[in-house]
Amino acid sequence: MATASSGSSRHPRRRTRPEVSVLRIGHRAGRDPRLTTHVALTARALGASRMYLHPPDPELAARLGRVAERWGGSFTVNGVEQWRPFVRDWDGAVVHLTMYGIPIDRAAARIRRHRRVLLVVGGAKVPPQLYRLAQYNVAVGNQPHSEVAAVAIVLDRLLGGPPPRSFRGATQRIVPSARGKKVVGPGATGA
Amino acid sequence: MATASSGSSRHPRRRTRPEVSVLRIGHRAGRDPRLTTHVALTARALGASRMYLHPPDPELAARLGRVAERWGGSFTVNGVEQWRPFVRDWDGAVVHLTMYGIPIDRAAARIRRHRRVLLVVGGAKVPPQLYRLAQYNVAVGNQPHSEVAAVAIVLDRLLGGPPPRSFRGATQRIVPSARGKKVVGPGATGA
Repeated sequence: MATASSGSSRHPRRRTRPEVSVLRIGHRAGRDPRLTTHVALTARALGASRMYLHPPDPELAARLGRVAERWGGSFTVNGVEQWRPFVRDWDGAVVHLTMYGIPIDRAAARIRRHRRVLLVVGGAKVPPQLYRLAQYNVAVGNQPHSEVAAVAIVLDRLLGGPPPRSFRGATQRIVPSARGKKVVGPGATGA
Repeated sequence: MATASSGSSRHPRRRTRPEVSVLRIGHRAGRDPRLTTHVALTARALGASRMYLHPPDPELAARLGRVAERWGGSFTVNGVEQWRPFVRDWDGAVVHLTMYGIPIDRAAARIRRHRRVLLVVGGAKVPPQLYRLAQYNVAVGNQPHSEVAAVAIVLDRLLGGPPPRSFRGATQRIVPSARGKKVVGPGATGA
């Protein structure tokens, strides 16, 4: 609109809150899927738009689909067959989470300037190319811990904490309470 | 000391940074231990002093002991046979992490006033008494996600982000770098 052309406040929203996706590589569908499930749920709860998963795991994607049906939002899990070309062709910033990287609190302001961000998390054995393909190699403390925790803290720094308590289209939502469980909505089952 | 008796700045340190322990209940030693391991590593990396584990799992405790040997610090995993009396007798604040609770960002300032804090995380099935035994029932967003993420964000809010990159007594430490892996110290193996 021609009515709002004053310089400094032109794209404040776009500039402070990128659209963030997570790419999880080295998932092993045969083994216990809980860790990857926790990465996906954390990504969704802390405001990421979607998770890409290599190799694809349709069962896990369906499970996350059911979470979004009940709890709202449009988070999806999308299978990726070849992660290298996917990362190379990403239209935005590629941020690799690794304990060897530079502190997130030193990199966050620069990363937030991008319109689209891909957070890449690997398993125990990360292919060395990833360090070169990534625009940023970023650490949440330089100690061994967890990709779930790293995703949580980095999303917090990029997007500013957990989004409002109910997501659009939820069939049930929680009423925060000091004691016990309070869930309301047509999808709520007694607690 | 009688020399430093001016009122307002008497206990500033103690007041802003409690000593935090994590209690993980409902661990299943037989099953895949990775999730509990991730909770423990995250607790350590984000500044908790120790993890209590119910039921005890000596193998997991030994594994975390080896991490502390290499990477420093005094974090330990201590088995707890009976979690109810343990929680009841805790000398400090008991903070139960649950998606049904009140937002951490509303409770953090009050919790930080305590000298000692016990963060309690359960598994999928949390015993209802826990909601009553806890002084605070606290949520990191009211969406389903992960106890690993919840521990990370709450420690971040209580202790102010990951501590300095090397812990006291480490035989190796990471030099943060924009590309690749850089580890130094007598315990470092080539990367």
